[in-house]
Amino acid sequence: MKAVVMRDKQLLTGTVQAPTPAAGEVLVKTLACGICGSDLHMFHHCEHVLANFKRGGIPVDFDAQQDVVFGHEFCAEILDHGPGSDKRLKVGTRVCSMPFIFAPSGFEHVGFSNRYPGGYGEQMVLSEALLIPVPGDLPAPIAALTEPMAVAVHAVNRAQLAGDEVPIVIGCGPIGLALIAVLKARGIGPVVASDYSPKRRALAEKMGADLVVNPAENSPYQSWVEVAAPANYDIKGPAAMFSLGPQPKPCVVFECVGIPGLIQQVLQHAPPRSRLVVVGVCMESDRIEPLIGIAKEMNVSFAYGYNGDEFAQTLLDLADGKLNGEPLITSTVQLDGVTDAFAALSDPQEQAKVMITFT
Amino acid sequence: MKAVVMRDKQLLTGTVQAPTPAAGEVLVKTLACGICGSDLHMFHHCEHVLANFKRGGIPVDFDAQQDVVFGHEFCAEILDHGPGSDKRLKVGTRVCSMPFIFAPSGFEHVGFSNRYPGGYGEQMVLSEALLIPVPGDLPAPIAALTEPMAVAVHAVNRAQLAGDEVPIVIGCGPIGLALIAVLKARGIGPVVASDYSPKRRALAEKMGADLVVNPAENSPYQSWVEVAAPANYDIKGPAAMFSLGPQPKPCVVFECVGIPGLIQQVLQHAPPRSRLVVVGVCMESDRIEPLIGIAKEMNVSFAYGYNGDEFAQTLLDLADGKLNGEPLITSTVQLDGVTDAFAALSDPQEQAKVMITFT
Ligand SMILES: [Zn+2]
Ligand SMILES: [Zn+2]
Repeated sequence: MKAVVMRDKQLLTGTVQAPTPAAGEVLVKTLACGICGSDLHMFHHCEHVLANFKRGGIPVDFDAQQDVVFGHEFCAEILDHGPGSDKRLKVGTRVCSMPFIFAPSGFEHVGFSNRYPGGYGEQMVLSEALLIPVPGDLPAPIAALTEPMAVAVHAVNRAQLAGDEVPIVIGCGPIGLALIAVLKARGIGPVVASDYSPKRRALAEKMGADLVVNPAENSPYQSWVEVAAPANYDIKGPAAMFSLGPQPKPCVVFECVGIPGLIQQVLQHAPPRSRLVVVGVCMESDRIEPLIGIAKEMNVSFAYGYNGDEFAQTLLDLADGKLNGEPLITSTVQLDGVTDAFAALSDPQEQAKVMITFT
Repeated sequence: MKAVVMRDKQLLTGTVQAPTPAAGEVLVKTLACGICGSDLHMFHHCEHVLANFKRGGIPVDFDAQQDVVFGHEFCAEILDHGPGSDKRLKVGTRVCSMPFIFAPSGFEHVGFSNRYPGGYGEQMVLSEALLIPVPGDLPAPIAALTEPMAVAVHAVNRAQLAGDEVPIVIGCGPIGLALIAVLKARGIGPVVASDYSPKRRALAEKMGADLVVNPAENSPYQSWVEVAAPANYDIKGPAAMFSLGPQPKPCVVFECVGIPGLIQQVLQHAPPRSRLVVVGVCMESDRIEPLIGIAKEMNVSFAYGYNGDEFAQTLLDLADGKLNGEPLITSTVQLDGVTDAFAALSDPQEQAKVMITFT
């Protein structure tokens, strides 16, 4: 089959052997697959990321010397069933799936594996038990957004919002944009969003953000004060520090950038007693000032992935329009265009989600 | 009056002018005052700590070139009232107070101030509105534990325990020991406690800790597994990571050491989805691996100080025996012995709380 392959630290478009489904698995034809920042990161810093994952206990493990076909954000169509299947879902059914395989060899990721090629190839093998049929005529590229949007759904669930919070979304890449959509769909807000890129700020507005800030010019925390705090509230004053006098609505910050220094930046500039949800995956070690966290009694929640219910519900919400994913897709490429897209995505200002389609 | 004074980076025992109460203030005679790790830290690293406090927004501010009389954990007796007092509490009443003054000049700390000497002196001036009478015949040294124990009460409140948690207390200095007492008083447990010092481990047992660990020999997280987790639970295995199969009771870690590296140590070794409450005040910058926090979906709450209700309730709980503070006091000195005690406390293995008494 045709696929984009990581081989010898290069990204090549070529032909690889199509996978064959074992018991409990199905063979599918890829219909659409998103290019994820994690794919780029894995491509550029493979050994480093694998070492970090190992230390962090994240069960992603493969031999970087052998072929890897990326792609964990996909929509596909069933081509064939492995041995012993009850064929609950017929050939031709369009499906989404969490990008995991529970194989006899253990747990594996689809798209970060030597054995399970992802959606950068024409065909994949998936776990039959994890398949979710795509409702109605939902376009495949929108269905393929289920994975990144489920990450946002999980992050919002993890924040355990009471409903009166005024959230700040730092970084309007695909996950930040998805977060804005999820927060708005739940009626949480006004939502403050912040990004250096004018294109991404325009997308944030399209997703429903109420106040969109260029942090080079204005502090998102000051915008938060405007919509969440009583008159004359000084974010760094003693009244804020000691909860004296009229208090603001609770502040929840979603950090969707994932580079060193961001956590400390939030600890330092967000109002006292803010909750920070770390969604951006920072692969490097980071420096914080605990004293500042202590003085302001901050709370930091790390969020990762999603569970099966969150994944399935996200697909349903995309299908019935509760979640609008469409603005996330800023361009579409064929397999032949993926290597160029990787180069273009190194400038994150220009794109949100690049979607691979197959015609 | 006689006092121990920080002057020119030295600790001297000598005579300073007694303070005089302004409107809204009372003059008191110090009955007992605890020596706190913060006093030692301030003495040894004064400029550094003040700079860090300023950055952290902690409103502790004084001129290190002028005299400072430490002591913010005190019990005292009313000697005189300032102008305009309604004398609600009579001369001779024994009182505790949060170590703050709301003066016309602004907010000030008692014991970290050029204007308001603390309990290392024979007399203090306190805010009349903050005074709480000491119930019955509660000994003054026990009443003086109200302040450090209120820190522990606040940290436990901040953890928002549901009741089924199995807590781990890292570091059995005065705050760690107080935490054990508060957790046991609330029926939370079993409580796992960890400290390198045999003396402090013995005190932890005395305070009611159920499993006491020397981390040089055994991991407190492994002890936690023994009492909180189902059979064959592997704290670093995929079943723990993905919440598959029988799950353990929730893990809450109270970090009461406050030195760099401790937060990362907890992120790395505590079970997935643990909650970490940072009570130890680390004055230096610190390094964490966000990826590990993310992979394990950890939560970090920073806790600081207490509020008025927590402070008042702590004094009542000490008085009616709900909280047993007595084992915390490992030695008692007079003002003349404070400079020696400071030297001895540099070896934290030997002591928990050293109490200054006045006869
Ligand atoms: Zn992704
Ligand atoms: Zn103290």
